[in-house]
Amino acid sequence: MQWKHIDDSAGEGSKTFVVVLEVGDEAVAALSAFGREHGLEAAQVTAVGAFERAVVGWFDRERKDYKRLPVDEQCEVLSLVGDIAGSDKGPQLHLHAVLGLSDGTTRGGHLLEGHVWPTLEVIIREAPAQLRKTYRPELGLSLIDLG
Amino acid sequence: MQWKHIDDSAGEGSKTFVVVLEVGDEAVAALSAFGREHGLEAAQVTAVGAFERAVVGWFDRERKDYKRLPVDEQCEVLSLVGDIAGSDKGPQLHLHAVLGLSDGTTRGGHLLEGHVWPTLEVIIREAPAQLRKTYRPELGLSLIDLG
Amino acid sequence: MQWKHIDDSAGEGSKTFVVVLEVGDEAVAALSAFGREHGLEAAQVTAVGAFERAVVGWFDRERKDYKRLPVDEQCEVLSLVGDIAGSDKGPQLHLHAVLGLSDGTTRGGHLLEGHVWPTLEVIIREAPAQLRKTYRPELGLSLIDLG
Repeated sequence: MQWKHIDDSAGEGSKTFVVVLEVGDEAVAALSAFGREHGLEAAQVTAVGAFERAVVGWFDRERKDYKRLPVDEQCEVLSLVGDIAGSDKGPQLHLHAVLGLSDGTTRGGHLLEGHVWPTLEVIIREAPAQLRKTYRPELGLSLIDLG
Repeated sequence: MQWKHIDDSAGEGSKTFVVVLEVGDEAVAALSAFGREHGLEAAQVTAVGAFERAVVGWFDRERKDYKRLPVDEQCEVLSLVGDIAGSDKGPQLHLHAVLGLSDGTTRGGHLLEGHVWPTLEVIIREAPAQLRKTYRPELGLSLIDLG
Repeated sequence: MQWKHIDDSAGEGSKTFVVVLEVGDEAVAALSAFGREHGLEAAQVTAVGAFERAVVGWFDRERKDYKRLPVDEQCEVLSLVGDIAGSDKGPQLHLHAVLGLSDGTTRGGHLLEGHVWPTLEVIIREAPAQLRKTYRPELGLSLIDLG
């Protein structure tokens, strides 16, 4: 993983980072670690690149958990968008992926694992505010709470 | 619907809003109302979250109207991107959605209806400029006119 | 093609452009030319709109080249995200597209050609930094090198 801080002169707490993930990086772990190291409490994430395999999730309301959907092939990361918000457990990453397969069809879901090959180009845009996620036991999910 | 104004210190007219939609909110109506209330004339919108059902559209050039494509199941909102521009009828929302189903396949189109469950996390980034849409009767659509 | 410079007051080198492509424009050629004319060395690109036909690519690791996947029909551009970075050959555009077909299914890949009908609304957000791509002969690709 390489990263660079782009000082966008937009005031305190408004940093923009370019993060480039490389072969061998797993995107969820790498970006979660990046968020913790930089103490990101409110940020918007977008990325393009490719994975050699990934696991996406669909949230099953009955089971209150993600159904795991493996994508065991080289795929273009057509879009990867989401955010980082603070929580009791520290910065929490929430990313949704659309993946392009070799026949041009797509798969997608909540990103659970993304094994980078050869690159993932990520923009992380910090906001000078706090976003807090609160765990909602009735849903089985943590949601942003602006209240 | 909850929302928070993130003062990004980027100058007058450059507000960034975080808007969190909740169970029971319909995204097109809620975000259109938000645009009107805040007088947004030029803004970029991105979101992730989930819908319990949605209707997307594909523009039919012959009929000069959107073909309605219902997605009657719980789906991840993998990406929701678009803009708000001014028009004779006030702020106009233009959103395109990619939705992830329980088998990992995707559906998508111009967002006509999106019934939120459990959340939709939206970033609205205002631009200090006006964008105007002009209705084009020959197309059946309103397009941004920078001229 | 029309374009407008949105002065976001975010400091030197942080311009944001709205670019509107029109019927007859091919998106990759038009946006590459725009990047060269404005000397963009680091920018984030997002767009929505529609194509009357497109060609997307999936990178074949064996052949070290993109497999061409034509989409020969009117399609909504559900998302188009990527970046512009400098290289030995000047600004280089890297865009990934998700396209929505008339039955609501989607196709996608690295954008090789996108023939606009009726519009493509593009936001190009410049960063006050340089991003450089370096050709990697072992991969057959140019990757961003922050080192």
